[in-house]
Amino acid sequence: MFMKITSRQNVWFKRVRDAIRDHAGEIVIEGPKAVDDALAAGWSAIALFWTAAAQPLFSRALDQKAAAAPPQSIEFSATLFDSLSETKTNQGVIALFERPKPANIFARRDSIVVALDGVQDPGNVGTIVRLAAAFDASGVALLPGCADPFSPKSIRASAGAILSVPVAQVTIAELLNCGLPLFAADGSASTIAPPARAAVLILGSEGAGVSDELLRASTRIAIATSGRVESLNVATAAAILMSKSFEAR
Amino acid sequence: MFMKITSRQNVWFKRVRDAIRDHAGEIVIEGPKAVDDALAAGWSAIALFWTAAAQPLFSRALDQKAAAAPPQSIEFSATLFDSLSETKTNQGVIALFERPKPANIFARRDSIVVALDGVQDPGNVGTIVRLAAAFDASGVALLPGCADPFSPKSIRASAGAILSVPVAQVTIAELLNCGLPLFAADGSASTIAPPARAAVLILGSEGAGVSDELLRASTRIAIATSGRVESLNVATAAAILMSKSFEAR
Repeated sequence: MFMKITSRQNVWFKRVRDAIRDHAGEIVIEGPKAVDDALAAGWSAIALFWTAAAQPLFSRALDQKAAAAPPQSIEFSATLFDSLSETKTNQGVIALFERPKPANIFARRDSIVVALDGVQDPGNVGTIVRLAAAFDASGVALLPGCADPFSPKSIRASAGAILSVPVAQVTIAELLNCGLPLFAADGSASTIAPPARAAVLILGSEGAGVSDELLRASTRIAIATSGRVESLNVATAAAILMSKSFEAR
Repeated sequence: MFMKITSRQNVWFKRVRDAIRDHAGEIVIEGPKAVDDALAAGWSAIALFWTAAAQPLFSRALDQKAAAAPPQSIEFSATLFDSLSETKTNQGVIALFERPKPANIFARRDSIVVALDGVQDPGNVGTIVRLAAAFDASGVALLPGCADPFSPKSIRASAGAILSVPVAQVTIAELLNCGLPLFAADGSASTIAPPARAAVLILGSEGAGVSDELLRASTRIAIATSGRVESLNVATAAAILMSKSFEAR
């Protein structure tokens, strides 16, 4: 069923706008390639939205990937569409998806889980999801105070990795009881090697670091630096430790 | 000399606005700590701008660091100030500085120079400047197509490191003739160890990679990954290679 929407009062328009802002039960993916990839990965599309200029791109996504259970297909006027999208790179195609269910991130023993504690910046969270794919981490655990990995900014920073990397929100108690030994990045510790498998690597925010309760239960790991900076950006610290862990497997 | 400005037509207001947008001969630093640090590092302040609410912070910066040659000291109305500043963390203090002169980045032989080729995102450029301080690189060379390291976003991402890390814009010809062996990050290469000293490490943009002309003159280095991502974010790739280089010194 096709329809064209021009009013900001339309219920579909409001629903997409709310999903971009709140990313609660429903989330938004932008751009024909990203929407294609999400459909191919089995994500559950509720509706596709497009501008007239993007119809060729849109039609391909719809025809190829969702023929079995086509989602709603809705045209927005260009003005309406531009007021929704956060980026210039959406190419006139966005889609509303059901939020994926939390994954079981503690199942594997041949790799590490990366846990983030209070990492508020969605760009950092998405970049670390991308690193988890690059270095085959078992999954990404998000402790309280982290940005949502399904926010539009996190999804963009993950460069598609959010489709394949298991992510789940966990409490400190759940992490303490996950059955895996804990390692925590801590600038004041010794520069020991990070674990290669069957362990959790915890990274905290730049300001506060890893919570005391988790630090006390963890083996602490520092990265060797010149000492000329107080800390590293959390995504760059994650990159260094996750790369080392992957090389040691 | 103190004055209070409330008009968007004021020449000082326009000068700061232009420096934020163009960061050409004059650049802007935001926040009392960052301004203090820049004054302490010997950067040449043209004028300090503040809101009434921030006067205590501002006065400290002025008294402590610039007593010998006080810059202009100018109060902006809160409305005017908020229309200028890009961030909520400026705390009502910004300063206009002369753009620092290009540094000699090829002088040292005990470390590596990091060269960026077409890295357009100012956050990535600033993050790599921060990594250069963390891993004591000799300097950061910016090839054509890179974001300005003195843009407000780059300066913020550098977390103060722009004050101590030598940076300079260079041409491909200058890099080819710098007298140091060149190494280039290239996902399709072998995973050899990066150089520890007396060399240049070149990183390209995620899309285009390092220019062919530079690649042909370089030893190529890849980072070992799972193969599940097409590329790494350039700042995370830089972190991994610069950390390895530092550890090998």
